[in-house]
Amino acid sequence: MKQLLTGQQPQAVRPTQKPWSGLVEHYRPWLPVGERTPIVTLLEGNTPLLRAPALEKRIGRGVRVFLKVDGHNPTGSFKDRGMTMAISKAKEAGATAVICASTGNTSAAAAAYARRGGLRAFAVIPDGYVAKGKLAQALLYGAEVLAIRGNFDQALAITRTLAERYPVTLVNSINPYRLQGQKTAAFEVVDVLGDAPDWLCIPMGNAGNISAYWMGFQEYRKAGASRKLPVMHGFQASGSAPLVLGSRVANPTTVATAIRIGNPANWAKALAVRKESRGHFTSVSDGEILAAYRILASEEGVFCEPASAVSVAGMLQHASEIPSEAQVVCVLTGNGLKDPTTALENNQSNLYTNLAPEPDVIAQVMGL
Amino acid sequence: MKQLLTGQQPQAVRPTQKPWSGLVEHYRPWLPVGERTPIVTLLEGNTPLLRAPALEKRIGRGVRVFLKVDGHNPTGSFKDRGMTMAISKAKEAGATAVICASTGNTSAAAAAYARRGGLRAFAVIPDGYVAKGKLAQALLYGAEVLAIRGNFDQALAITRTLAERYPVTLVNSINPYRLQGQKTAAFEVVDVLGDAPDWLCIPMGNAGNISAYWMGFQEYRKAGASRKLPVMHGFQASGSAPLVLGSRVANPTTVATAIRIGNPANWAKALAVRKESRGHFTSVSDGEILAAYRILASEEGVFCEPASAVSVAGMLQHASEIPSEAQVVCVLTGNGLKDPTTALENNQSNLYTNLAPEPDVIAQVMGL
Repeated sequence: MKQLLTGQQPQAVRPTQKPWSGLVEHYRPWLPVGERTPIVTLLEGNTPLLRAPALEKRIGRGVRVFLKVDGHNPTGSFKDRGMTMAISKAKEAGATAVICASTGNTSAAAAAYARRGGLRAFAVIPDGYVAKGKLAQALLYGAEVLAIRGNFDQALAITRTLAERYPVTLVNSINPYRLQGQKTAAFEVVDVLGDAPDWLCIPMGNAGNISAYWMGFQEYRKAGASRKLPVMHGFQASGSAPLVLGSRVANPTTVATAIRIGNPANWAKALAVRKESRGHFTSVSDGEILAAYRILASEEGVFCEPASAVSVAGMLQHASEIPSEAQVVCVLTGNGLKDPTTALENNQSNLYTNLAPEPDVIAQVMGL
Repeated sequence: MKQLLTGQQPQAVRPTQKPWSGLVEHYRPWLPVGERTPIVTLLEGNTPLLRAPALEKRIGRGVRVFLKVDGHNPTGSFKDRGMTMAISKAKEAGATAVICASTGNTSAAAAAYARRGGLRAFAVIPDGYVAKGKLAQALLYGAEVLAIRGNFDQALAITRTLAERYPVTLVNSINPYRLQGQKTAAFEVVDVLGDAPDWLCIPMGNAGNISAYWMGFQEYRKAGASRKLPVMHGFQASGSAPLVLGSRVANPTTVATAIRIGNPANWAKALAVRKESRGHFTSVSDGEILAAYRILASEEGVFCEPASAVSVAGMLQHASEIPSEAQVVCVLTGNGLKDPTTALENNQSNLYTNLAPEPDVIAQVMGL
């Protein structure tokens, strides 16, 4: 134990690190908030940009891969970035209730921020297609959850209608404040790397996030905070790939439930991003998604939800096209804990149960 | 949309915020690592210290309450703080495998860091008493999980024996590097508040974390980085309260599975903390725990696991004893997503299922 003490009386006393104040305070000049906007925050943002050595080794040629781990946000997904803005602005406007359609992540974020802000939260979800953790969150946060016999696209149509007819504020990504908040993820990437990456790989469901990242990269470049713009690579699950196919998908299916969306609300915006960034949209199979999901956890130590692994599955599918020495950022949108069922059903680990509590028994099973 | 543009061309270009490098790099002078230590990090630490206005309102008298939200760590619990140290030091020493006993959080952290560092991870757990999300994590990260017919205390005894007999490194909190890493949570609290709080409220299971916090507060004060020391209030679940009762509990029971421990490994250290800080150990019922758990989610917007809510349940039980104007920090040790089952079974929200996908139907159910 003696050697442990060597580190305990440093010369430098206290490190200087300004405490993180939430993304609205941190990026206030870039966001449409005023002095009177009541900022509802859970100290979201400032998520890790983590180097991915195992993926780099797979790709080779000096390519550097970073994971933007946005599942580290307060409710476990990138939705918090948009929701701190949407709820703050709803509160500023005098709203007392908000509503969203959701595959799970939006409802959790809406519920947490709405309740912290003292508002009611309604969530319309597709019955049976929301991961267990997400439903648990929304309910414990105090949302009123309405599960319909229908899919996300139908849920979104209903919430749009209700928000037009009744005094409830829509907080889906068609609410412009959502994308304003989400664009800060691009700012954070540039703030860490010193410039935009060469490639940005990102999952697409409703396609709000790719639009938000692009807005952030463009604004930073325009202001001189970065020199270049990334090529935007958007990926969808092959059973739910309207943006790749160029037509709506009536009954989308995929293990990546967070992006199980057949008629994206931000369709036109996403196509503009592809064109402006000279990017590509492609699809990956559920098999590729789950393979990337397992690599991320068992080699990089990052547990994300299946929809997040889509960005890495897509990058690996296109690995040979990445320029040598390029910097690639893969966006991991949500925490793997939101969907424990998929992890329990799709791992390759050994689980031994009902063992006698004896060292010899355990040693034998371990192969010692 | 026009007004949205007002914020988009700020005078200040890029905010200066040094990217967080993980807790070992950030607090390196305070930790027993050398230049040759291979630091295995997932960029843990730097978790939010969140003001809790709803709890403050309940207590009144100018008391300020902060939540140390350590469930924001990479694997969703405070265990990551210790694991970055334990795995880095194990790797430095040439280990190729680690082992732990766990109620779930330790096994998830051990698996993630071990796999990222290229080591094997074995976890011995009590069969049937590990929350679903935690088991999902450990398996997806690639741990080899051994579930015994027995409780945590028996699992710990077995792993101690195996670590003595075989070349596997024990990474439970009796590994001294674990508490070294965990003490950085106290540093972070002081770095944000500018001094130690008046009270620290913390759940106790194996009692490693209370010992680590106290070590951190003491070291900072000794170095002049803070002026005072907090009174340490440790709380246990009433069905699993050996430190309160002063004797082992053979068959501990509580909804707070993360602290379902009847024979804490850090017993002597915890008693020393209580004495030195003039603190108190008390127990809270499962009912009090679940009430605090719901308040945190539905009023503060923070979803923690039941064991974490023990700190807030304890604070509320002793609210009348908190000095007016005092600063209280409640440690929230783990993410609520780790235990979706408890959230689904213990919320007070409305979940309406199997609804027809029609706006009029939804509006009626919403009471509009």
